[in-house]
Amino acid sequence: MNEFRNSLLGNDNDKLQVVFLVQSNHFLITMSLLQHNHVAASLSSSTSAFFAQNGFDVLRTQIVSLPTKKAAVCKCVATSPAEQTAYKTKVSRNGNIAKLQAGYLFPEIGRRKAAHMLKYPDAQVISLGIGDTTEPIPDVITSAMAKRALALSTIEGYTGYGAEQGEKELRARLASTFYSNLGIEEDDIFVSDGAKSDISRLQVLFGSNVTMAVQDPSYPAYVDSSVIMGQTGQFQKDVEKFANIEYMKCTPENDFFPDLSKVSRTDIMFFCSPNNPTGSAASREQLIQLVKFAKDNGSIIIYDSAYAMYVSGDTPKSIFEIPGAKEVAIETASFSKYAGFTGVRLGWTVVPKELKYSDGFPVAKDFNRIVCTGFNGASNIAQAGGLACLSPEGLAAMHQVVGFYKENTQIIVDTFTSLGFKVYGGKDAPYVWVHFPGQSSWDVFSEILEKTHVVTTPGSGFGPAGEGFVRVSAFGHRNNVLEACRRFKELYK
Amino acid sequence: MNEFRNSLLGNDNDKLQVVFLVQSNHFLITMSLLQHNHVAASLSSSTSAFFAQNGFDVLRTQIVSLPTKKAAVCKCVATSPAEQTAYKTKVSRNGNIAKLQAGYLFPEIGRRKAAHMLKYPDAQVISLGIGDTTEPIPDVITSAMAKRALALSTIEGYTGYGAEQGEKELRARLASTFYSNLGIEEDDIFVSDGAKSDISRLQVLFGSNVTMAVQDPSYPAYVDSSVIMGQTGQFQKDVEKFANIEYMKCTPENDFFPDLSKVSRTDIMFFCSPNNPTGSAASREQLIQLVKFAKDNGSIIIYDSAYAMYVSGDTPKSIFEIPGAKEVAIETASFSKYAGFTGVRLGWTVVPKELKYSDGFPVAKDFNRIVCTGFNGASNIAQAGGLACLSPEGLAAMHQVVGFYKENTQIIVDTFTSLGFKVYGGKDAPYVWVHFPGQSSWDVFSEILEKTHVVTTPGSGFGPAGEGFVRVSAFGHRNNVLEACRRFKELYK
Repeated sequence: MNEFRNSLLGNDNDKLQVVFLVQSNHFLITMSLLQHNHVAASLSSSTSAFFAQNGFDVLRTQIVSLPTKKAAVCKCVATSPAEQTAYKTKVSRNGNIAKLQAGYLFPEIGRRKAAHMLKYPDAQVISLGIGDTTEPIPDVITSAMAKRALALSTIEGYTGYGAEQGEKELRARLASTFYSNLGIEEDDIFVSDGAKSDISRLQVLFGSNVTMAVQDPSYPAYVDSSVIMGQTGQFQKDVEKFANIEYMKCTPENDFFPDLSKVSRTDIMFFCSPNNPTGSAASREQLIQLVKFAKDNGSIIIYDSAYAMYVSGDTPKSIFEIPGAKEVAIETASFSKYAGFTGVRLGWTVVPKELKYSDGFPVAKDFNRIVCTGFNGASNIAQAGGLACLSPEGLAAMHQVVGFYKENTQIIVDTFTSLGFKVYGGKDAPYVWVHFPGQSSWDVFSEILEKTHVVTTPGSGFGPAGEGFVRVSAFGHRNNVLEACRRFKELYK
Repeated sequence: MNEFRNSLLGNDNDKLQVVFLVQSNHFLITMSLLQHNHVAASLSSSTSAFFAQNGFDVLRTQIVSLPTKKAAVCKCVATSPAEQTAYKTKVSRNGNIAKLQAGYLFPEIGRRKAAHMLKYPDAQVISLGIGDTTEPIPDVITSAMAKRALALSTIEGYTGYGAEQGEKELRARLASTFYSNLGIEEDDIFVSDGAKSDISRLQVLFGSNVTMAVQDPSYPAYVDSSVIMGQTGQFQKDVEKFANIEYMKCTPENDFFPDLSKVSRTDIMFFCSPNNPTGSAASREQLIQLVKFAKDNGSIIIYDSAYAMYVSGDTPKSIFEIPGAKEVAIETASFSKYAGFTGVRLGWTVVPKELKYSDGFPVAKDFNRIVCTGFNGASNIAQAGGLACLSPEGLAAMHQVVGFYKENTQIIVDTFTSLGFKVYGGKDAPYVWVHFPGQSSWDVFSEILEKTHVVTTPGSGFGPAGEGFVRVSAFGHRNNVLEACRRFKELYK
């Protein structure tokens, strides 16, 4: 397993920087001290006014240290080759896992980033690649978690096993906060350690005999977890798709919403809105079509609303805003991108009691069994944080975090727009989807990395319809985003 | 979902008690104030001396409140029947989940406990049923978690996504603490949100085409997760077993170690030692036999060592103490029963790089892929707690917690022994396995509940070979354990 650490420290005048790179396995340890002409980044006055509250003051100036943390994009690189031993068991390798492609997106990016950092050990590499949050968690939330942690040392405050489905109060608060008047009740909500875990649990729920559809492009975990469960055929190199998965093309031509007249019926339809990676949020009209399509086909939608708080205007924040959706949809959501909980781990999944299998059996009853058998609930400390997130102060603080990243998005959108690119997403999502027509995503990725030291994500990594696009994430310290945009302007001027 | 809360508060002279019972769905809310002749419970001088340290002073007297928390045994009761809606999807219910038995152990106990509490609303019900920890987490551990939580509100202390496999420092500390000189390295260790989650992930790893063996009796999650993955046939009512699972009988006749000459070869062998529910810890000699058996058959052992710190003497604490085990075994473990982390959620699984599939492919490489695709790492706050657990102070504190529960165990063992029962387990585990020859476990469970208001666990719920036994858990406040034992003596005098 490769391990990377890229830590950038800036002093008051932003001239002195330390780049520190550690890789545990195949590479060297490099440390260098360099002078870097960091162009002064300034925030607009409206921006700085916006952040002159609740712990965001530090963002107003550039006199900050910018730890960019272990690059999460590098985490999934396979373990180093095992030492050769003679003994082998007689257990066959799971053939479904063997179908997965070695060139999984984020490890590949990690490898390329690593190679780049070896080539340019002095470069100030900025990652706008993986969607990893960078801004501190608001105080009101962490103090609730600290309080809960300390209470666990008291007789009165100690709690052991919690309900696998989550604490009653948190489930109730989630229902009233996000699903008020939508008919979703406390017992429809299953609190989890995050959407990624729940996506896998949902795959286990449905098993290997279902068919599934994904948006193309989409978050790789949908397809990979489907492959692992044995729902798919082999990977077909020529079309860059797994057999037996319905890839629903989402491109500028169809406003990033699939042409449902061309989509084959499947049992399960993953649908993410606002979408990762395209940043596109489906309109109410589009979601009405989607629900009707599912209803006509007897399909189940797994609606990933992890970015719902980034939505503005009338665009739905939940699939359950669409009449009838409770009979055909599951929704999975997360605190990660609202409260910076990517490391704290807390999410939830809504399985309405109205959702039934073909034999009339409630899906929620089986999901409850899956959760009870293979999960013991989210950390009680994280749940205390979740409850604080849903207090009036917590909600205001989360809106500030979301607002901050949306300002980053606007900076990135403005940059590429000013350079003449066609830019999508960004409005209702923390991702900007930049079009490089006729070019290979990986070529663009490589050129940007080579010439600007900025890590992005090649669109083709999310599916074949992502070819020719690059995803730029808005998760980053303001200075890093501004500096990256300065370099983009330099490159594409 | 039924929700229960049973809170018992005792005043100085232990005469005034409040019993508060809430059930959200099918039952009434009952509240009563009663006078209860609580027999004075006294600790031996050695006991009180032992706990006159580090926050355990409170345990020395009976002037404590005894919150028994939400009864975790009731958590898995199925959701209430969904309202009738006309619409059904065309998605077939997963046939494997349909194989699971409705009368799953802990929900059934929950239902019986609920009925009992309705019948005797004034009873002081004591739960020695599910193995849920009750003692506060040592300060050194919770303060580390609180510190980490608060640091997440700072630019310097904020971390986003961590490595799915766990933080490097924690993995290294786990390796050096529990596997020193056993050849297990940091990168063989995958930190998780608990053993139960990892058991399910291991099932997903191996897929539906493997065969598996379990100890009979054993922790129900092994069998249930296997059924869910489609590794088994239907449940066979006559023998109380699922088809295609090898049940390895563990009874007093074979010293709770299976007669391997009668065990059929399977791909996977779940083996828990110290065992839940029998409390029996396999000896070095027995584990050497087990590893040899696996090696001869090319099988993979999934060794559940969640209670390893309860082991004393030369009895192995890890399967990797057995030469050659790295080529045939995975070990899953947890902080739950050492540090009271049942609600905090932190565990780990060791997949040695020497463990290979029949084609020579390393199992760890696929497990890494499973973890990366369906998990995003344990909560960073919980991991900070884990690191504190492994500090010298944390280790000492965990040993105290374990020592406290082992004293409870001894009290229970002594009680049943003095009453003339054959008692097993208890020495190297927090579970006491009491034999009621010729009787039905459920009948014994019911009689104990009816006449003493103490919840135990019927042995047959862990497998057919558990028939005629009852498991008594040592997880409980001292006063509750002493009071339960007083009642046992009254019942069986």
